[in-house]
Amino acid sequence: MMVDVFQGTRAYFPEVKSKIPFEGIESDSPLAFKFYDENKVIAGKTMKEHLRYSVCYWHTFCGAGADPFGPGTRQYPWDDSADPMVAAEHRMDAAFEFFTKLGVPYYCFHDRDLAPEGKSPVDSENRLMSLVARAKERQKETGVKLLWGTANLFSHPRYMNGASTNPDFNVVAHAASQVKSALDATIELGGENYVFWGGREGYASLLNTRTDIELDNMAKFLAAARDYGRANGFKGTFLIEPKPMEPMKHQYDFDAQTVTGFLRHHGLDKDFKLNIEANHATLASHTFAHELQMSADAGLLGSIDANRGNPQNGWDTDQFPTDIYDTTKAMMVVLGAGGFKTGGLNFDAKLRRESTDLEDMFIAHIGGMDAFARGLEVADYILNNTDYSARKAERYSTFMTEAGQAFRDGNMGLELLFEHAEGHGPVATTSGKQELLENLINQALIKA
Amino acid sequence: MMVDVFQGTRAYFPEVKSKIPFEGIESDSPLAFKFYDENKVIAGKTMKEHLRYSVCYWHTFCGAGADPFGPGTRQYPWDDSADPMVAAEHRMDAAFEFFTKLGVPYYCFHDRDLAPEGKSPVDSENRLMSLVARAKERQKETGVKLLWGTANLFSHPRYMNGASTNPDFNVVAHAASQVKSALDATIELGGENYVFWGGREGYASLLNTRTDIELDNMAKFLAAARDYGRANGFKGTFLIEPKPMEPMKHQYDFDAQTVTGFLRHHGLDKDFKLNIEANHATLASHTFAHELQMSADAGLLGSIDANRGNPQNGWDTDQFPTDIYDTTKAMMVVLGAGGFKTGGLNFDAKLRRESTDLEDMFIAHIGGMDAFARGLEVADYILNNTDYSARKAERYSTFMTEAGQAFRDGNMGLELLFEHAEGHGPVATTSGKQELLENLINQALIKA
Amino acid sequence: MMVDVFQGTRAYFPEVKSKIPFEGIESDSPLAFKFYDENKVIAGKTMKEHLRYSVCYWHTFCGAGADPFGPGTRQYPWDDSADPMVAAEHRMDAAFEFFTKLGVPYYCFHDRDLAPEGKSPVDSENRLMSLVARAKERQKETGVKLLWGTANLFSHPRYMNGASTNPDFNVVAHAASQVKSALDATIELGGENYVFWGGREGYASLLNTRTDIELDNMAKFLAAARDYGRANGFKGTFLIEPKPMEPMKHQYDFDAQTVTGFLRHHGLDKDFKLNIEANHATLASHTFAHELQMSADAGLLGSIDANRGNPQNGWDTDQFPTDIYDTTKAMMVVLGAGGFKTGGLNFDAKLRRESTDLEDMFIAHIGGMDAFARGLEVADYILNNTDYSARKAERYSTFMTEAGQAFRDGNMGLELLFEHAEGHGPVATTSGKQELLENLINQALIKA
Amino acid sequence: MMVDVFQGTRAYFPEVKSKIPFEGIESDSPLAFKFYDENKVIAGKTMKEHLRYSVCYWHTFCGAGADPFGPGTRQYPWDDSADPMVAAEHRMDAAFEFFTKLGVPYYCFHDRDLAPEGKSPVDSENRLMSLVARAKERQKETGVKLLWGTANLFSHPRYMNGASTNPDFNVVAHAASQVKSALDATIELGGENYVFWGGREGYASLLNTRTDIELDNMAKFLAAARDYGRANGFKGTFLIEPKPMEPMKHQYDFDAQTVTGFLRHHGLDKDFKLNIEANHATLASHTFAHELQMSADAGLLGSIDANRGNPQNGWDTDQFPTDIYDTTKAMMVVLGAGGFKTGGLNFDAKLRRESTDLEDMFIAHIGGMDAFARGLEVADYILNNTDYSARKAERYSTFMTEAGQAFRDGNMGLELLFEHAEGHGPVATTSGKQELLENLINQALIKA
Repeated sequence: MMVDVFQGTRAYFPEVKSKIPFEGIESDSPLAFKFYDENKVIAGKTMKEHLRYSVCYWHTFCGAGADPFGPGTRQYPWDDSADPMVAAEHRMDAAFEFFTKLGVPYYCFHDRDLAPEGKSPVDSENRLMSLVARAKERQKETGVKLLWGTANLFSHPRYMNGASTNPDFNVVAHAASQVKSALDATIELGGENYVFWGGREGYASLLNTRTDIELDNMAKFLAAARDYGRANGFKGTFLIEPKPMEPMKHQYDFDAQTVTGFLRHHGLDKDFKLNIEANHATLASHTFAHELQMSADAGLLGSIDANRGNPQNGWDTDQFPTDIYDTTKAMMVVLGAGGFKTGGLNFDAKLRRESTDLEDMFIAHIGGMDAFARGLEVADYILNNTDYSARKAERYSTFMTEAGQAFRDGNMGLELLFEHAEGHGPVATTSGKQELLENLINQALIKA
Repeated sequence: MMVDVFQGTRAYFPEVKSKIPFEGIESDSPLAFKFYDENKVIAGKTMKEHLRYSVCYWHTFCGAGADPFGPGTRQYPWDDSADPMVAAEHRMDAAFEFFTKLGVPYYCFHDRDLAPEGKSPVDSENRLMSLVARAKERQKETGVKLLWGTANLFSHPRYMNGASTNPDFNVVAHAASQVKSALDATIELGGENYVFWGGREGYASLLNTRTDIELDNMAKFLAAARDYGRANGFKGTFLIEPKPMEPMKHQYDFDAQTVTGFLRHHGLDKDFKLNIEANHATLASHTFAHELQMSADAGLLGSIDANRGNPQNGWDTDQFPTDIYDTTKAMMVVLGAGGFKTGGLNFDAKLRRESTDLEDMFIAHIGGMDAFARGLEVADYILNNTDYSARKAERYSTFMTEAGQAFRDGNMGLELLFEHAEGHGPVATTSGKQELLENLINQALIKA
Repeated sequence: MMVDVFQGTRAYFPEVKSKIPFEGIESDSPLAFKFYDENKVIAGKTMKEHLRYSVCYWHTFCGAGADPFGPGTRQYPWDDSADPMVAAEHRMDAAFEFFTKLGVPYYCFHDRDLAPEGKSPVDSENRLMSLVARAKERQKETGVKLLWGTANLFSHPRYMNGASTNPDFNVVAHAASQVKSALDATIELGGENYVFWGGREGYASLLNTRTDIELDNMAKFLAAARDYGRANGFKGTFLIEPKPMEPMKHQYDFDAQTVTGFLRHHGLDKDFKLNIEANHATLASHTFAHELQMSADAGLLGSIDANRGNPQNGWDTDQFPTDIYDTTKAMMVVLGAGGFKTGGLNFDAKLRRESTDLEDMFIAHIGGMDAFARGLEVADYILNNTDYSARKAERYSTFMTEAGQAFRDGNMGLELLFEHAEGHGPVATTSGKQELLENLINQALIKA
Repeated sequence: MMVDVFQGTRAYFPEVKSKIPFEGIESDSPLAFKFYDENKVIAGKTMKEHLRYSVCYWHTFCGAGADPFGPGTRQYPWDDSADPMVAAEHRMDAAFEFFTKLGVPYYCFHDRDLAPEGKSPVDSENRLMSLVARAKERQKETGVKLLWGTANLFSHPRYMNGASTNPDFNVVAHAASQVKSALDATIELGGENYVFWGGREGYASLLNTRTDIELDNMAKFLAAARDYGRANGFKGTFLIEPKPMEPMKHQYDFDAQTVTGFLRHHGLDKDFKLNIEANHATLASHTFAHELQMSADAGLLGSIDANRGNPQNGWDTDQFPTDIYDTTKAMMVVLGAGGFKTGGLNFDAKLRRESTDLEDMFIAHIGGMDAFARGLEVADYILNNTDYSARKAERYSTFMTEAGQAFRDGNMGLELLFEHAEGHGPVATTSGKQELLENLINQALIKA
């Protein structure tokens, strides 16, 4: 029988006694949802089904606030054991307590978040599997599921020059060994996706780099992972998470279209989709919605790492999403693409280093969940209760004419097009009505 | 018989009496080359053959210094006729006088640079062809050749929402009519390439845009252009010039890898290559060398628009290239890829608005030509007279081992790689030696 | 007797028959206000009194959509006279028709927006004063007032190297002549402020620039303008509008703190305040609210140029403000500083080049006015109906202790502070509660 | 008697047997100078006297390559003691061995680089002073001097919300206690400067921040430090090091002009000057030369933190300086300002995380020293052997006319300037000759 709120041998979040409630816009409690009503039905599905929220293991349970200029600012009660395997067990209990008190259906992890690295690939795998067994039990007890697993191929010094794109084959093999174990773990836990974020797949200097070899190796590596996963029963989606830079000067998975081109070129686009992170989008000079739209157009919209950057700062700040314009535009793309299949909204977001109360972990996630819940409401309103969609369709209506359709079908050469132009005099300009649409969004933001 | 220096009915640059000479590093003359000695042989070819310099028609003869905050600052003597067709003839005479006095083998143009738009596609084509006849004559007289032609599909108000990606089919047809005529012109003048720069192919707002339709239309449009060109005898290379933004908020041909993915997806990569512009590279958060390398890796390095941006400014400043680090790194990629085939180095660069002396046109081009000439010398030195290439090969040597090669051939699955890792203990980190290579470049910069 | 809606000899906006009404959130009309109810009272003043909206002459009546890649896309009916002075009269009639139909209390202009430049300073002044006389009449008829006047010291080629900072004294004198006339015009029309935006006060290249001379000259120039204005009856505020770059590579009035330092150093801070533009703030890597706060802290918050940039683009896009987060945070600073005195909210914003319907001019301004009206409501709600202000005060409460106050008074040296620290053991970290405050804003955005 | 090369109880850099030699441009050794010949005389002083090189303690002896995505990659032999005070002694021996083998006359440190924090201010001071005694001895043995000392007021969690600008007075007191001890240490070691880099003096969110209180507190704090230093015999220069952001979203010491305005406003500009860091300049959207020039113009050019950023990355990469354009332009400003007084060139630069050989520490510093040595040669050549300076003087010559001088003296009001303009007809534009000057620099780069 599943528990509503999990608690291990110790209560890590005693000040939050039960599951965070939905209280609505009038509530004064920082520990209640204002917009996220998990059972509210929008366009035929509940908010919970639409949004498929997930909490990430790394920032939330492993990150204590360190940055390049100072160590962590938070002391986590689950970190007080000197034995890293015992600490890993405590961390897992804290995690499931948090998942259930927050009320999210999913979580995500890197192999090294769950269990510390061992002396060798076999030892590391054993450690990982020991924690996986515990996680499996916790999942059963709570009903919380695994959105995706992944391997940390960027922290260990051996990966300083890349993992699958390392110039040293022995490092590539070590990376593969981690992926093998992490895939095993993901399969064992029923993970719905498996993610590759190419943390150091890229270069610090083009001067010492053979990009052709490295990118080809990356394709070989991904194909090997796919083959292993499929052979061992993984039915979920493989995901690539684009990021343009940081820590490397240049990262190969620059953005959605770069990755799409790469996947197609190497025949990987049947098994791999994209995991779009908002802050990575903006670091690549794109909007979050743009990256989602490019993925959707390619049929490769897989999942989302929900967060936001700081427009004035040039690094990955991984702030919790709060901008309802951004969440609205994101959900317009997601709804337009038919909603999530195996993917979901994973909060790859971290508390500000200055947010040192344990309750801040809840407050931050509540804010993010409310922001996307409101975004979902507003997006649904715009798409279904305004003339937005009709306006957009009308704008492209000339391609429904005979000549327009012939062009779309590839049946009009330049001579025919020249003749058409000669016969269709000066063309009037047609207003793009951008300001009208922006006003419509502002109205919907409040009215929805 | 060809003239050394062309002059029409009027001398537009009387203060430059003959072809700009090479005088070497000791020269005090601003109107002499310090590094570009066109007949100097580097790695088996003359500088002239390596660099294939081209002057652009638009910035150099049509642009008088206007910017969004003010009109032009220069009065060109070839602009003094009220009849735009007469002015176009004068401009052409000035251009060929300039080409020959500067000593470049190539030039480039947009249709509207040569001749003003007419009342209809037919009228515009007639005007263009009248000037093309004159250009053909001038080419014969001077030996100056056409590196590439293109159509201006971004200035006319009808293109405000895009040309081939316009939501109105009638605009697409007009754009096609211009490309038809511009291809005819390019073929007639023996142009070695034909360029597409997607000035307004993109969007101002994602809210009113169907990116899927627009990108598919762009592919259809390019295929039609290719088919027409090939059917009418064009043997050269079609080129796409990536740019990430400006004037549009987002432009579809964002960078080299985006365009590469697009060309391959639509089966256009046999006929199309890339024209890489330095300033567009940096606007896309890449180095110039990166964009060249990505193109070379894909076998799509076609040609270069030589200029530079201002690292502190977020728009296309199109400054003349002067940074010898950049030209060195660019020429390292070009030499590594076997040099230019149909492409060359076109100065898509404009005088600063504040540079109002006619001699500044020469001085700016001389600086750019010297910068790439020195870059060629330094690049050749690094590649052939230092241990640079050997160091780079050594770095990837583990992929020449049996296991490494098996991985490269796609014959090592995750289990085998796991076993390899288990058997190859902790991997030592290997220094990337970035600082050593950077010092080597500084030494070569002075010593070469 | 004042008219509600002005119309000259011709109706320029016949499709808008009367003043744009407030219809509220339920309205489906693009030509009605959803939030701006000019008579609604917030914190003791009407929205109209708080916001002091102004329309700018340049973008709205002079700008037809040109950008560096193409000419304008709109044909304005008031531009159809070949005589520039007649066109200027028509433009003015159109402007006052627009002001009154939109329902704004203020407008702003550059000298050259009102009247074209003449053959000499005297001639230019005569032309300007002729239009000023007409404007004075129109102001009387409509009750519309002048928020501020300014001189265009950046478009004419003579200013290519700067106006007051030009290396040529004769150019400086010409700039001064324009300011003299523009000040006369502003005084004559009862302008409440006079603005300096240093369009080309800066440099294209540090290599040819004596920044020390140029900045000192700028101070002398501003002092001369102040002295002239005060001697001739100008009682309003002089304003400097910071901008970090564009068109110049570097502009001297980089941001609020740079200008504040400059004004204080040269003894100008008694007469000059700041005119903060949102898009200029973001080009300087600041938020709009930051620039306003820095101005308020210095007692120099004068007025606002309301618009917004595009976070993905590195140039001044001058879009209409629509982001209610930005307008809320701006109004929090403005309310905190006691509201506008002589300043107001001037829409220094332009239609997208693709917005070619005349109604788009209204729609865009309506959107901007609604965005700031809603921002005012939300800001007032946060400051007065939530615990926001109390939380902020509490955060600094240790400075109300005896020791804290002694430090604030400059009465604690390092030794005393050392002793205090020694005696006050390890200090606990106190959470900054950033996420809590961000959630509070989201709640207020909908609830206010 | 001073040793040429220091060695403690252990050789930390045995592979470098003696002081790095100058071998000149023909040398193939990565461990020899190509340009830095310390005794070569340029413009009356040796290179050593001009450049006043300094090695920083933090990056070079404390930083092992950690970044936000992974731990350090280098194992330092001086870090192998479990007792942090013993490790600190070893580190110091390694440092002096390195200083003398590299041949730099200066070094710099933070208090916590020298000695770990203790249990209280008194305990921390005792630890620091124990290492200071050792450093004093090492300085005497080697002749190496202290360019500047500083206190680390940003790493400890207590400073997460700022040090002197913390909203908690008790934290301010702790910060003051560190400055007191660090000043004592600097004085004891004969440090020529004392630096404040405001690591977390700024804000993460404007929402929770009273910028007015915080900035006023910063001024009080700096005044207390100055008073203590002067009272205790510090005769050197206090330095503020501007940085616009990172780790904080906004940092108060944004750039040179912001800090200049602050120092003047609070009467601190007699004792404080600026320490300009190249990478901080570019993060603030300025060139390195710009920040130096603004400091020089204000009479506040104190010292330099020599490094460089990566133009494609938006965070502080602290790479070793290698760009000779940048070092040339920097040295043009430094020479123009009369050279360093108490300041020098401190390498606030770190090895790439991927540079894991101990020799890379030498190679990187050699590259930086060579880059500035060459920059000095080129700058001197341009200033003294070309027409550069004459051209620049000529450009401002109109201010030497009677009227121009009157304006400079503040004796021309707007009416007089109007009359002057009326009498001096249309002004001709004068070319800025930017391209000519850029070509001149390229020529000098090779020829000098």
